[in-house]
Formats: sequence, C-alpha cells, structure tokens
Amino acid sequence: MSAATATKAKSASAASGRGEPPRPQIRIMFRKAIAMGPGKADLLRAIEQTGSISAAARALGMSYRRAWLLVDTMNQCFKAPLVETLTGGQKGGGAQITDLGQEVLSRYLEMEAKATASVQRDLAEFTRLMAVR
Amino acid sequence: MSAATATKAKSASAASGRGEPPRPQIRIMFRKAIAMGPGKADLLRAIEQTGSISAAARALGMSYRRAWLLVDTMNQCFKAPLVETLTGGQKGGGAQITDLGQEVLSRYLEMEAKATASVQRDLAEFTRLMAVR
Repeated sequence: MSAATATKAKSASAASGRGEPPRPQIRIMFRKAIAMGPGKADLLRAIEQTGSISAAARALGMSYRRAWLLVDTMNQCFKAPLVETLTGGQKGGGAQITDLGQEVLSRYLEMEAKATASVQRDLAEFTRLMAVR
Repeated sequence: MSAATATKAKSASAASGRGEPPRPQIRIMFRKAIAMGPGKADLLRAIEQTGSISAAARALGMSYRRAWLLVDTMNQCFKAPLVETLTGGQKGGGAQITDLGQEVLSRYLEMEAKATASVQRDLAEFTRLMAVR
C-alpha cells in the first residue's frame, strides 16, 4: 500500500467507507455453511470480550437471534463447540470461548493474514480497475 | 490434501456435500459491497456462456431480480460496466461481458487461486478441528 493510499484509508470515515481501498476477505466453507469468516471471527472476539452472546450481539449491532444462529453454525461445523453457554452461577448465564474456539479463531486469523498477503500485489492492480475516487 | 481425502471429496455427492473437505473462498470488498466473489464470478461466467442475464440466472437457480442486482453492484464497483446489456437487434436483448469484465474475472480467479494456495497447509490443520466425518 502506498503512503498516499494508507493516509487516504485512515482519514476516510468508516461509516461512509469513501476512499477505502478494496480489501480481501476469506471464508472457510464447510458443506453449504460458512464455518468461519470475518463475521463469525468478529462475533467470537466480541463474546470473548463481553462474556455473553447477547452483549456481543449488541456490540456488533446484530440481533440476538442472528448471533445465536452464527454460534450454532460454528458449533456444528467443528468437532466440539467453539462457544459454551454457562447457566446459573453468579453472573446468571453468559458465554465463553472454549479452547477449541480460541484455536479456531487464531488459525483463521493466520489464514486470513496469509491469504491477504498472497494477493497484495494483485490487489493493487485490481484497485486500478475499480471505481476508487 | 492426502490421497484418502481427495478420494473422499471426489466420491462425495455435490448436492449433500458430505465428505467434502473445507474450502476457502475469497471476496473482494469495496466500501460496504462485495465487488467480486465466488457468486459474482459464477454469474459472470454464466452470462458469458448464455449471452443473457435471465438465462444465466436460470442456469444458477437464482431469480432474475437477484442476478440483476449482482450485475448492478459489480457495474457500480468498477470504473466501467463489467456487463453490457444489448437492446433490440436479432437476438432482442441479451447481455455480454465487457473487456473490463473479462479482465476483472481473470484477475479475481488468479487471486482466488493464490489465496487458496497460500493457506493449503493451514487448511489441512484446520480440517482436523472440523466435524469431518
């Protein structure tokens, strides 16, 4: 990325996305489902930070139902659950990432970084074809 | 991929997806939109093969409205249209991929291949964490 592009991206409002360069995303498909992708990775991190599915959903501006469905898909795609819900106790419920969830998340982030790095040069060429103004 | 996994993937029915190994997909995001991804790449190829948006939509089992919206998004994300609709003439309508569309498609497929190759080893490890039966 050139210094000019980096500055442009930084100064662009995240809400409007104007001036943002194109960016690659990677998803890991399993059968017909997205086992892991940017949305599910964000949700795992938010559950880790907030300690609950509902608080994570609120933090990401998604419905509790949607967050729950994403968690359910992840839990079914892997050999054991990535998110564990806790019932009762002092905090009355809540959720946490399992060790497998941590491993899946860190391996996904690593693959995402490698995939992004592998297309950096191509992406610069691709950007010239886009409606970047 | 091990020989056993490859055989398993080959013999699996595409419809059920059972025994299919996880696979990566790459999407190029531009602002809030998917400028190019597996679905749009398939649509471009189908338009190229069928010569029309409606025939391409039918071939992919999607509604004409959805195909049209995907084409519209692509056309707006790039500096010029990727798909051109033809009015009148002997064929009465129809659509074709522009030179820019061809270039975008081939550059995307190249990035997809590179990204996939870059995570091949990680993906094998990742697969061991999945509910592959």
